[in-house]
Amino acid sequence: MTHGRLQGVLSPVVTPFDGALRPDSRRLVRHCRWLLGHNVGLAVFGTNSEANSLSVAEKVQLLEDLVAAALPAGRMMPGTGCCALPDSVELTQHAVRLGCGGVLMLPPFYYKNVSDDGLFGSYAEIIERVGDSRLRVYLYHIPPIAQIPISLKLIERLLKAYPGTIAGIKDSSGDWRNSSTLLQSFQSEGFDVFVGSESFLLAARRSGGAGCISATANVNPGPIAALAQNWTAEDADRKQAELDAVRRIFQRYPMIAALKTAISVHSGLPEWAVVRPPLIALDGAQRDSLMTELDGIGFAMPGLAHG
Amino acid sequence: MTHGRLQGVLSPVVTPFDGALRPDSRRLVRHCRWLLGHNVGLAVFGTNSEANSLSVAEKVQLLEDLVAAALPAGRMMPGTGCCALPDSVELTQHAVRLGCGGVLMLPPFYYKNVSDDGLFGSYAEIIERVGDSRLRVYLYHIPPIAQIPISLKLIERLLKAYPGTIAGIKDSSGDWRNSSTLLQSFQSEGFDVFVGSESFLLAARRSGGAGCISATANVNPGPIAALAQNWTAEDADRKQAELDAVRRIFQRYPMIAALKTAISVHSGLPEWAVVRPPLIALDGAQRDSLMTELDGIGFAMPGLAHG
Repeated sequence: MTHGRLQGVLSPVVTPFDGALRPDSRRLVRHCRWLLGHNVGLAVFGTNSEANSLSVAEKVQLLEDLVAAALPAGRMMPGTGCCALPDSVELTQHAVRLGCGGVLMLPPFYYKNVSDDGLFGSYAEIIERVGDSRLRVYLYHIPPIAQIPISLKLIERLLKAYPGTIAGIKDSSGDWRNSSTLLQSFQSEGFDVFVGSESFLLAARRSGGAGCISATANVNPGPIAALAQNWTAEDADRKQAELDAVRRIFQRYPMIAALKTAISVHSGLPEWAVVRPPLIALDGAQRDSLMTELDGIGFAMPGLAHG
Repeated sequence: MTHGRLQGVLSPVVTPFDGALRPDSRRLVRHCRWLLGHNVGLAVFGTNSEANSLSVAEKVQLLEDLVAAALPAGRMMPGTGCCALPDSVELTQHAVRLGCGGVLMLPPFYYKNVSDDGLFGSYAEIIERVGDSRLRVYLYHIPPIAQIPISLKLIERLLKAYPGTIAGIKDSSGDWRNSSTLLQSFQSEGFDVFVGSESFLLAARRSGGAGCISATANVNPGPIAALAQNWTAEDADRKQAELDAVRRIFQRYPMIAALKTAISVHSGLPEWAVVRPPLIALDGAQRDSLMTELDGIGFAMPGLAHG
């Protein structure tokens, strides 16, 4: 791993809540430690973290708690992009101050059909206000959810204005052609492309991609990280197929609720199944069906139930 | 006007910023006073207020400033629906404590394709946590932007669970058939329907609608409020056509920037043109063209330039 540069596999770490829907940092620390133990970095406060259901104060506190628990900030890429400019500035400043390896920044996502000028203005304003040479921004392209795409022209303009600071992108378009275009267009400028799903991990590595940031890294971290590292091995395609089989099962359910259900079952901690509105937990039938499917392929989460 | 119940015309009040993009409460108070002087209520922190580009702390402060300036809280319907549950709770609690006539509540809008169960859970959790019989919630249906529709089934369920608290809806679908269905379905239960554009004002009044909450009420408050009141007059259709002519002009430009431009020109205060990213201000050509079109129909903002 290149020293000091985020790469390989990161997990948009699911956020545990208690019965009163409060974030539980003790369980979050434990899950992060388990992920790091499988060589997976911490993209806390991503889409799959229900980050957009958390207040700024809650995110600040959780990040403080992770760092206080001696988890390595250099392996963290917290999501800091919000609708409101001051929120994005506050979270980004905080992440830089704590020494995070980078931040994953959604564009402001309420107003639709905004121009590249407006999005450039938003990113530029945040970067200028944070005003710290340690800042590494990973753009977050997730048009199916945010509905605000990050265009090639916008990336080009941001890279030119803020070289070194604009460090890469998470491409959650679900479209390999887009990832491939990003790799061809910007890789030579030290712009790292992370695909948003391990389904594209092997293809990405073969094209020089930095890695993946994927929901299912929350539950299948070891095998995903292994393929990211051993992508030149002879059995790489077979390993990719194994990853795909796990992911396909989770994709048949509401993803976040399904990840939390699997963690709750494998950790023996039922509270892990709690999600915040507007999401809802799996019902009993979904839960049984998910676990049966996972058992059917011998799915395991080694070391999760560590007391 | 029914005592104590919001009705008629409300403006999603545009939020003035200074050159450093900070909200300017002095100018906001002045604009609110001008709107009230034209019998238009204050739906502050709506979509056209760039509310989703403001932090919770900024919204709390601005609302405090409005009330401190002796503007009547009973005429206010601040937007309080955010992505994050604790944010919506905080803003709603604050609005109720200050005596606001109601709150306009977006559903959480980041996660897409969420279920009615999840949306019910979100509204229910907020209402329960606020736990105040004075709370009046107006649901905010704006699928073109929030991408999260408020279904008839959801309204039915909320009305049953929280009668009296669920007070109505702002329908910004832009589809009169939807407003008409809402009126037919829920009007008898004391559920007030506000259309999201004065284009539907006359039709809404004729069908028992409570009024409208419309962007262009920021610039054309008097004539819109007059039609809301005098909808049985003989010249009502002609008055509606006059409102439509003004609105059509603004709709040819990015709405929020155009509203602010018109206010900046008519008030003589150039800073009014400032918008926050991701929005951008009109360029010179757009500005000239807008003002020429408005002059062409004799558009005026009487009493705005009061020094």
